[in-house]
Amino acid sequence: MTENGLGHREKVLNMNTMNPNVKRVEYAVRGPIVQRAVQIEKELKEGVKKPFSEVIKANIGDAHAMGQKPITFFRQVVALCAYPDLLEDNKFPDDAKNRARRILQSCGGGSLGAYSASTGIEVIRQDVARYIEKRDGGIPSNPDNIYLSTGASDAIVTMLKLLTSGEGKTRSGVMISIPQYPLYSAALAELAAVQISYYLDEDKCWGLDVSELRRAVEAAREHCKPRALCIINPGNPTGQVQSRQCIEDVIRFAAEERLFLMADEVYQDNVYAEGCQFHSFKKVLFEMGPEYSNTVELASFHSTSKCYMGECGFRGGYMEVINMDPQVKLQLTKLVSVRLCPPIPGQVLLDLVVGTHLTWTPRERTANLEILAEKAKLTEQIFNTVSGIRCNPVQGAMYTFPRLTLPEKAIAAAKEKGQAPDMFYCMKLLEETGICLVPGSGFGQRDGTHHFRMTILPATEKLKIVLENIRAFHKRFTEEFS
Amino acid sequence: MTENGLGHREKVLNMNTMNPNVKRVEYAVRGPIVQRAVQIEKELKEGVKKPFSEVIKANIGDAHAMGQKPITFFRQVVALCAYPDLLEDNKFPDDAKNRARRILQSCGGGSLGAYSASTGIEVIRQDVARYIEKRDGGIPSNPDNIYLSTGASDAIVTMLKLLTSGEGKTRSGVMISIPQYPLYSAALAELAAVQISYYLDEDKCWGLDVSELRRAVEAAREHCKPRALCIINPGNPTGQVQSRQCIEDVIRFAAEERLFLMADEVYQDNVYAEGCQFHSFKKVLFEMGPEYSNTVELASFHSTSKCYMGECGFRGGYMEVINMDPQVKLQLTKLVSVRLCPPIPGQVLLDLVVGTHLTWTPRERTANLEILAEKAKLTEQIFNTVSGIRCNPVQGAMYTFPRLTLPEKAIAAAKEKGQAPDMFYCMKLLEETGICLVPGSGFGQRDGTHHFRMTILPATEKLKIVLENIRAFHKRFTEEFS
Repeated sequence: MTENGLGHREKVLNMNTMNPNVKRVEYAVRGPIVQRAVQIEKELKEGVKKPFSEVIKANIGDAHAMGQKPITFFRQVVALCAYPDLLEDNKFPDDAKNRARRILQSCGGGSLGAYSASTGIEVIRQDVARYIEKRDGGIPSNPDNIYLSTGASDAIVTMLKLLTSGEGKTRSGVMISIPQYPLYSAALAELAAVQISYYLDEDKCWGLDVSELRRAVEAAREHCKPRALCIINPGNPTGQVQSRQCIEDVIRFAAEERLFLMADEVYQDNVYAEGCQFHSFKKVLFEMGPEYSNTVELASFHSTSKCYMGECGFRGGYMEVINMDPQVKLQLTKLVSVRLCPPIPGQVLLDLVVGTHLTWTPRERTANLEILAEKAKLTEQIFNTVSGIRCNPVQGAMYTFPRLTLPEKAIAAAKEKGQAPDMFYCMKLLEETGICLVPGSGFGQRDGTHHFRMTILPATEKLKIVLENIRAFHKRFTEEFS
Repeated sequence: MTENGLGHREKVLNMNTMNPNVKRVEYAVRGPIVQRAVQIEKELKEGVKKPFSEVIKANIGDAHAMGQKPITFFRQVVALCAYPDLLEDNKFPDDAKNRARRILQSCGGGSLGAYSASTGIEVIRQDVARYIEKRDGGIPSNPDNIYLSTGASDAIVTMLKLLTSGEGKTRSGVMISIPQYPLYSAALAELAAVQISYYLDEDKCWGLDVSELRRAVEAAREHCKPRALCIINPGNPTGQVQSRQCIEDVIRFAAEERLFLMADEVYQDNVYAEGCQFHSFKKVLFEMGPEYSNTVELASFHSTSKCYMGECGFRGGYMEVINMDPQVKLQLTKLVSVRLCPPIPGQVLLDLVVGTHLTWTPRERTANLEILAEKAKLTEQIFNTVSGIRCNPVQGAMYTFPRLTLPEKAIAAAKEKGQAPDMFYCMKLLEETGICLVPGSGFGQRDGTHHFRMTILPATEKLKIVLENIRAFHKRFTEEFS
């Protein structure tokens, strides 16, 4: 201790005094394996010899990082909005200029640097509503129900926050799929809400069965108050696309069990498999008639980060709320106002995404989606040739979540290291090949099963090499531990 | 009830089931008065006759909305980054192109559309650290202590979240000034942390007195566990600038009372009054010697939204953490990773803000700050000619927080309406003149005193009119209720 007693003492903020809910948060998509990947990248730069020359990050749905190019028109408009002197430049097409002018007219002082309304720029919320109407075959959408957000994550966490209340057995419970996108489990941990897990059926192409929902909610009623049901469709990490019938069943279940529905539809353009089609929860809800469309509370989410545009870095998104209690809506509006507004460049990107659906389709959109469809097929085909890897069709989204058969000795070796077996597997894969995947344990899986999540985003030729490298690794790994 | 019992029933999410902490949140800067202002704007557009032709929003520090122009160089670089084809355009200066190339090289796939590391793009964190070093006369800054954020608000809420724990009498208490920027009270309400109010001394130019801090913390110890002390310097809404001595006293107090220090320094360039100077908490802490610089835990915050650039819409910001427990730092990094990354365009803007300090000063910077200084003086001068309005010098930031003497009859009339007297005053001002201010009650004030916050951002000629209109209104108001 120093003279005045200030030295060498415990921190004010330490592991014992910090928020215990934050300690419980886990987010595997950017977890230890990704930290190791970043380290390896540095080592490669410093000239450390490795059996590979680059790290391939197939851990996160980050299309541009994997080489996908932005949609030209979108970026022209963003540049025009950022630096309006370019509006005088004849190198830009008129439709881009008109679009930029319209957006700037809705910005305070005609600048992207002004705050917008906390729910987002009004004309953009109107455009989003018109987009939804067109997507859903004319079912009306009210701009007052649209809240722009900082990516979809922001809106999802805000909704979960509103839904969390109670203590002990009256604590809010929220149903999420297993496997799930770990934003959900992380947000629930932070909010100290109860996670109610329902399992998707791997044997039925990761399908959702209402009897499993019922089992889960009934078990949960013993220790919490179930309030919400979260669905990701197309599925992350599973890549499944829900049938219209399935969505109807889910809505009926939510109505019967009195659950607020949250539909994460950020992959709504990413549907590849024949016979599969995207159906929005909103549309199905309204087609089920007023008994449902006037009562079931629904929030659905979309984002600029996925689909064909992959503009993750702009953090654009929106949510539409249906049948929300008007007083709660005022509370929601108040809550989002504390953070002032979602980033304006992200709002602009969102406007371009929804706007092009209304008028014309950039050539690049079709091309990007065709390439993704091709890669979805390729991934499934190659993995299913590997003994010990079994993979469902990638019907949609950007991921495959194949099941691994791991030798007993490997499972024992993982246990010895205090690692989940699929973490052990993925870590070894990273060290030997530079391929960065996320272990299935980061998304949740049935006990005793092992998976990983891989994006289908690397460029086709690179993806082929990645798949071949995983195939070879899997063979080596199986032999080493047999 | 309809056949299957689904119709006409209570909402799942209603005022009784929603998160009670969210209900307690208040955020006056975008509260009822601003909602009314938006409504009035619509009415004006629809041709409704009013005694004024436009609404002037002096409620929020939104420089561009008030006509301030963006810094040309910043926007050139953003446009180049958004649409790199422009790198071939000879209309852009080389330094803008070089800057854009350097940023794009640090982006995944060379695109603003890729996610960055959750703490922000590495070269930008390095630039921020170099900026801090230069600002603080060479005191070292480590990029590993820099976390980029979605505006400063995001980082402030994240820190408050980490600091919140305990139940009942062990619940975390956080000291905030009164008056305060309501982000703090809103975040504490949402987190169910205890707000410990300390009062700034209006008679001493809104100065901070350590004896008042001591009074507040001692009283708070009876019902909570004080853990953190928040300071806003230059002050919002008060416009005061703290002396070096004051900051030393505060740091010594935090050390003695074992409080985590949070220094909100988003107005660090906005210092106008003669004899006043900005001193960062970081710098003063390190100048106090290792006894303090090795022990006192500090997080300081900055943003792209204020100062001379006013780029609120981009939602750029950073925090620097000093002496943070390394394990807690890992938890912080994990926590921010759940939201993936701060918006990239905001990160780019931040890089430009910190970068220009390192090399050259845009002419527009000096001009903008000079105009603000002129308006700060003008505001003080005119208000102090009004009988019943008394205003401290606007030493810094972008606000004046004058004290109002209100007639007893006005206070009674407000009570009858269930409104705070200054809300009653501001609402009437808005209806009669179109000027939108925020009542002092939204920031907190000593019982029985009344204030409003007004930004000094309207263009000089308009500001003069605003001030004259408030003077005339105040006279009318006082006469009406005398």
